[in-house]
Amino acid sequence: MTDLRLTPLAASLPSTVPFVGPEAQERLQGRAFAARLGANESVFGPSPKATAAMAETDQWKYGDPESYELRTALAAHYGLDMSHIMIGEGIDALLGYLVRLFVGPGDHVVTSLGAYPTFNYHVAGYGGTLHTVPYVKDHEDPASLFATAAEVGAKLVYLSNPDNPMGTWHDAATLEAALDHLPDGCVLVLDEAYIECAPDGTAPRIDPTDPRVIRMRTFSKVYGLAGARVGYAIGAAPIIDAFNKVRNHFGMNRSAQAGALAALADQAYLSDVAARIEAAKARIATIAHENGLQVIPSATNFIAIDCGADGAFAKAVLEALIEEGIFVRMPFAAPQNRCIRISCGTDADLDLFAAALPVALKAAKGG
Amino acid sequence: MTDLRLTPLAASLPSTVPFVGPEAQERLQGRAFAARLGANESVFGPSPKATAAMAETDQWKYGDPESYELRTALAAHYGLDMSHIMIGEGIDALLGYLVRLFVGPGDHVVTSLGAYPTFNYHVAGYGGTLHTVPYVKDHEDPASLFATAAEVGAKLVYLSNPDNPMGTWHDAATLEAALDHLPDGCVLVLDEAYIECAPDGTAPRIDPTDPRVIRMRTFSKVYGLAGARVGYAIGAAPIIDAFNKVRNHFGMNRSAQAGALAALADQAYLSDVAARIEAAKARIATIAHENGLQVIPSATNFIAIDCGADGAFAKAVLEALIEEGIFVRMPFAAPQNRCIRISCGTDADLDLFAAALPVALKAAKGG
Repeated sequence: MTDLRLTPLAASLPSTVPFVGPEAQERLQGRAFAARLGANESVFGPSPKATAAMAETDQWKYGDPESYELRTALAAHYGLDMSHIMIGEGIDALLGYLVRLFVGPGDHVVTSLGAYPTFNYHVAGYGGTLHTVPYVKDHEDPASLFATAAEVGAKLVYLSNPDNPMGTWHDAATLEAALDHLPDGCVLVLDEAYIECAPDGTAPRIDPTDPRVIRMRTFSKVYGLAGARVGYAIGAAPIIDAFNKVRNHFGMNRSAQAGALAALADQAYLSDVAARIEAAKARIATIAHENGLQVIPSATNFIAIDCGADGAFAKAVLEALIEEGIFVRMPFAAPQNRCIRISCGTDADLDLFAAALPVALKAAKGG
Repeated sequence: MTDLRLTPLAASLPSTVPFVGPEAQERLQGRAFAARLGANESVFGPSPKATAAMAETDQWKYGDPESYELRTALAAHYGLDMSHIMIGEGIDALLGYLVRLFVGPGDHVVTSLGAYPTFNYHVAGYGGTLHTVPYVKDHEDPASLFATAAEVGAKLVYLSNPDNPMGTWHDAATLEAALDHLPDGCVLVLDEAYIECAPDGTAPRIDPTDPRVIRMRTFSKVYGLAGARVGYAIGAAPIIDAFNKVRNHFGMNRSAQAGALAALADQAYLSDVAARIEAAKARIATIAHENGLQVIPSATNFIAIDCGADGAFAKAVLEALIEEGIFVRMPFAAPQNRCIRISCGTDADLDLFAAALPVALKAAKGG
């Protein structure tokens, strides 16, 4: 056939997927996972009011391209003007739009080695140069992120707080102080996907008109709506408005808009989920301890379990868990890859995990 | 505030929306439209089986990033290998990915003057140069599209069949013959959003391994799932696989995947909708005739009514209809903009339209 006349940049990109989905693994194995604990989804599900709102939506109508009602509700929730809020098809899409706006060949971006791969995928996809700094004691390190950003003249620096894949976090005061060292003209992409289950005092206070920071939040995690694809960005109005230059205006699913609106309104349910997350994390820690393993303190809806050896060993544990029907993932950069990452599950899910972990550890030890 | 360090291309783009949604107009007017006949949505709704499938979906889980089940079902439906099919967040998203893959500054693209603005938005968004050719007697003109593509060395040429906004179409044989004149190395983007209600013999037979054509189809129109955002591309495997370089892999709403799958399986419902579309189009034509107006023959779920004068007059009719609570749109390029475009509605919708049209015509004539 004729060679495709792709752009030079597109031709240079691999056709790889940042993450393989659990369904692909299930197809490969020819059976469904018994417990789905790998994608930090909320097994507790969304508010029943969100489910009802989605079911009541007329899906023959396009969604409102301005997501006006949801933006209005989020603005009221945070006490902001809605000009500070942009809705998108999950944080993934918003990260893509943001990188597209700021980054092209010759532009520099900084993140932590082993942080969110989909952000890196977007940076590569638009031809940017990615610089990474190591985690320090399983925490992302704002000081080295911002220092490297200054050195390379970065346009964007990415930081997740709480962090994925380790679950660690910095308190608000630490981040507020660190911001003094963010170089001029560099935008901090603050991914707060897990903020709703983090301790009070985790989210830094940032003036919404401050052009140095854009926050990313989502209905995919604690709100339990990963399948709906609703994320949002909070930032200075000029950055928020710039999304309108490039976004897929009619990209939002109409029932997802309605579901997110109802989920936001049901803060009592959100608190209940946060409590269930705490209980599940305690159970995961207990299971780890019973197997002689330590856990990393977590402000998210998952726990990184330190398997006590190197990445190859943790990978063997992970593969044995998958063999046992438990879907889990793990960090991909050393030394964090000594851990496996377990999302909160139902009691039944964690019973299965409790049964599978000793089997997996034995298998990984060559038992 | 600090100036945003956007890329030069992003800085040059306007923050405009290809279409203003009806909800925005409703907010402006302070009241809801009585009939929603402007976006070529399917007021008849999706198959009840699709609605049930969406309601039964666990929205706490991410959708399958490979949309494997839906691609498998579409492949079976068309008798193709699934390597020829890509799913995306509506045709709009797929057009964006396609343009991103092929078009950068210095690259040329051809379309018809007055054809789908969202395609043009993507071409501008990636810095391409857009060339337009006129409609001929309210039809897109493959001969001049392909001749211009040859002249400018276009990478992509866009053609919708049936056409939006006029509803006209070419039969399969015409397009198959025209393809002989598509210049080497130029990809035809064949938008078949309305194909399910077009006459038999409208869709050209194209070898799925033919790298010259990529077809775009959707669940938004006759399938009645505009709110769900499910489109698909059919093309040669290398083009289809190239989408994996740039797409938002986890962008698909999980219930939308399930809804599209159920909708596809309910072809009896689709046939029923196609019959209802024919009846509604006949009614719209009758209403036009009763008001002394002619209609453009249509193979879509809408009818362009020739208001019998110039664009300014048609715009006055449109604005008066909106004033009467009827949401409609119109072509934006002359001479097609002598028309208003009326989507098929329920009997009640068309009763309202029948009452409003003479009022609007009188108002446009300076009543």
